[in-house]
Amino acid sequence: MTTERPLHELATRFRALHDPAAPLALANIWDAAGARIVAASGASAIATTSAGVAWGLGAADGNHVNRDLMLELLRRIVAASDGLPVTADIESGFGATPADVADTVARVLETGVVGVNIEDAHPSPADSGVALRPIAEQAERLAAARAAAESAGIPLYINARIDVFLCGVGEESGRLAETISRARAYLDAGATGVFVLGAGDPETIAALTAGIDAPVNVGGRPGGLSVAELGRLGVARVSLGAVVAEAAYALVDRAGRELLATGTYESVLGGLDYGVINGLLEG
Amino acid sequence: MTTERPLHELATRFRALHDPAAPLALANIWDAAGARIVAASGASAIATTSAGVAWGLGAADGNHVNRDLMLELLRRIVAASDGLPVTADIESGFGATPADVADTVARVLETGVVGVNIEDAHPSPADSGVALRPIAEQAERLAAARAAAESAGIPLYINARIDVFLCGVGEESGRLAETISRARAYLDAGATGVFVLGAGDPETIAALTAGIDAPVNVGGRPGGLSVAELGRLGVARVSLGAVVAEAAYALVDRAGRELLATGTYESVLGGLDYGVINGLLEG
Repeated sequence: MTTERPLHELATRFRALHDPAAPLALANIWDAAGARIVAASGASAIATTSAGVAWGLGAADGNHVNRDLMLELLRRIVAASDGLPVTADIESGFGATPADVADTVARVLETGVVGVNIEDAHPSPADSGVALRPIAEQAERLAAARAAAESAGIPLYINARIDVFLCGVGEESGRLAETISRARAYLDAGATGVFVLGAGDPETIAALTAGIDAPVNVGGRPGGLSVAELGRLGVARVSLGAVVAEAAYALVDRAGRELLATGTYESVLGGLDYGVINGLLEG
Repeated sequence: MTTERPLHELATRFRALHDPAAPLALANIWDAAGARIVAASGASAIATTSAGVAWGLGAADGNHVNRDLMLELLRRIVAASDGLPVTADIESGFGATPADVADTVARVLETGVVGVNIEDAHPSPADSGVALRPIAEQAERLAAARAAAESAGIPLYINARIDVFLCGVGEESGRLAETISRARAYLDAGATGVFVLGAGDPETIAALTAGIDAPVNVGGRPGGLSVAELGRLGVARVSLGAVVAEAAYALVDRAGRELLATGTYESVLGGLDYGVINGLLEG
């Protein structure tokens, strides 16, 4: 199945979707039905949320989920994605060394995925004493990811997440420069674009896109700037990350609590029709 | 892990929860995070929805999902269920023969599950020419399930679903009698209780519980009778079935469509906090 996917073409098509004139907008999913539903809504690509993937499989987010379980899930998501490009959030690459990251990327490409997010936040900040990996170390990990993709002959979209703002690293006044500095090093190492979470104000976002000569991805949040507004600031990609999963699990939580508290079922009003979901998955 | 679960005690405890004075109320889930969230809300048991399980794994409901994938998922759900009894909807038992059903039940018990739903709707009504399996055939399948549980030494709760109302079988005036007749045959064959979907009016429900000398399970639906009201009609168990999954996937659908239509994110308002879900899954 996955060998029949035209991965080179899908990766190239996915890269071309990163355009501030019409930013790529991704409602991140974490299972096969979510992928099929988002594909059926007219999306141009499918993206996973690492948090949702880990949670759905029974693990906490942050490099706790079993890599093989994640890879099996990616295969199911690719199969459900109706031929759309699929990009996977692979946390910090599942392993201590650049060789581990290369191995993960090689296996992820085997699932039919054509893009990855790789973050520079350290998976064990308490033990390592650093919130983020040093620039040179992270650049080496991204270079290993790129080499693995080149070995496979796929122009993998490597979205290098920079967590300076998200983790509140250093003085606030220095975070923009540190993010741009990391972006340049990561792009030199082989990243295709960068992903900055936690930089919410328009001035910072505009400064980021002005200072980074590659597609910039930011997060979308209720009440925040719209996709078009972010595009006018130079953003090429907007993703929802964990928030769709957080909303879906809130619904499960409300349904369970309502059932125990009042013995009623109003939380589940407005669901998709059984036959509609079943029909989508019969194909 | 599962060998450490006191399955005999869990099965006995699960049976005792079926009490019209305080009906067992189940918000059915389909992944590990859902199990953990419902367990954390104070539920006394965890139940799967076969539709949600199949959809999440990329298959249509109705005996299309791969049995091994379902069994692996059941293991993850049991591990996430904080020691609560877990009951699994196993559709019509995954197989054409009673021996197949026995094999499925033996494998399901290995995952740590202590209850199953088994339905009498035929998985391929068009080919077989019948909506439901003949009573004798279904009784034989349930007897095989009971024998497998006895071999394992577990007092498995076998919830025999009777789909006369759901599938609209025969004249409307005859459905109550046909359901009661099937219930008696299934209980004689080894079922612990019966599950009737599609019989919504109070008179029919009261007639069912009066005519069936075992716990009766019905579905809960928005706007329908509350758990306490159903208990007063003699119902011992109320389950939400696929409707929680239908609502959660509707949320995914709305988030995806809103993102494409207006480039905004209001559909995901009110999600659970990232740290709360992560904390639940760190245990």
